[in-house]
Amino acid sequence: MSKVRAEISISLDGYGAGPNESHENPLGEGGEGLHDWVVGLKAWREPHGMEGGEVNVSSEIFEELRENVGAEIMGRGKFGPPEGGPWGDDSWTGWWGEDPPFHMPVFVLTHHERDPLTLSDTTFTFVTDGIESALAQAKEAAGDKDVFLGGGPDSINQYLAAGLVDELDLHIPPILLGGGARLLEGVGDLKLEQLRAVEAPGVAHLKYRVVNK
Amino acid sequence: MSKVRAEISISLDGYGAGPNESHENPLGEGGEGLHDWVVGLKAWREPHGMEGGEVNVSSEIFEELRENVGAEIMGRGKFGPPEGGPWGDDSWTGWWGEDPPFHMPVFVLTHHERDPLTLSDTTFTFVTDGIESALAQAKEAAGDKDVFLGGGPDSINQYLAAGLVDELDLHIPPILLGGGARLLEGVGDLKLEQLRAVEAPGVAHLKYRVVNK
Repeated sequence: MSKVRAEISISLDGYGAGPNESHENPLGEGGEGLHDWVVGLKAWREPHGMEGGEVNVSSEIFEELRENVGAEIMGRGKFGPPEGGPWGDDSWTGWWGEDPPFHMPVFVLTHHERDPLTLSDTTFTFVTDGIESALAQAKEAAGDKDVFLGGGPDSINQYLAAGLVDELDLHIPPILLGGGARLLEGVGDLKLEQLRAVEAPGVAHLKYRVVNK
Repeated sequence: MSKVRAEISISLDGYGAGPNESHENPLGEGGEGLHDWVVGLKAWREPHGMEGGEVNVSSEIFEELRENVGAEIMGRGKFGPPEGGPWGDDSWTGWWGEDPPFHMPVFVLTHHERDPLTLSDTTFTFVTDGIESALAQAKEAAGDKDVFLGGGPDSINQYLAAGLVDELDLHIPPILLGGGARLLEGVGDLKLEQLRAVEAPGVAHLKYRVVNK
């Protein structure tokens, strides 16, 4: 059966983004350390059009999480720009250039209406009528495949609080951010089952099933 | 060389104790779930005078962490009673009965003076002149062995913030507490190196070295 799977890198003190997100620091101050474990992987570099890269325990985890995904939902914070607000002249087209690495329908949670944006084989649909609507559209688009909640932390928290998430994959590098957007805050009485804990270079991969969704 | 090692169970949302600690809930509401992974182990039950128990991956971790320890430092919150404050008639002798499971010198951080308390082969010394003094006394007592910081979260945070911790062992069961005493809060710019991540039934064991202590 099609699942709703959330995945995010968080600091050891629980933040999915550091304080003061900006164009220079899309993940907030210190937040780039959240992704150190992944940006060196061949499995990450290839879809981002980069050569080289490592193969290690994280490669398998990274590839597995991208299998059988038919649509992604992301928060406005992840799509950007960091200042948020109305879209203006629509010149902001995300962080990923002309060929975004998603290659599937992406639904962006936002308070501001905007026409769909197609870049190569990725279409961004901007959803203004709430997380349930975004999930319904993403499920429709994904068909038999899973829906992927790609962050940031606030959007994942909203789906967790609403009892709409089946699985939660956390990547925890050994960094502290000391502030920013905290995952697992305000999500209520969530019952989780630990599915695995995997050691990899510079990161721990923890996976949970939401039992009482 | 003798090390200072901190160990604590924290919830996936980062709390080392739940809200509203009391005589009924020494670890706060929901906090007993922090220790579910350990209280069923034969390795834990034996020193607590209980029969039976499981042997699994956690057993080895638990036993290893108790090797080569010469003294423990604990916060007043861990020693109790939950209402804190002056000691009154000294009738509170901790949670552990006549034969506490420490079997070594224990230094209790407190604002209130009290004479040392010996129960079986454990002596509790109450330290009112700060964490550095408690550490100096514990190191002296431990000799060549390590000093163990047994919690709660606030006392470990203080030692981390002061740059006095060599290693940090976290046990993370798949529970959320939603409030209480958070580990790794206010500890400043701590650089950590991940030493291991171990999967065990109902818990992930993560171990870090503090790089910039």
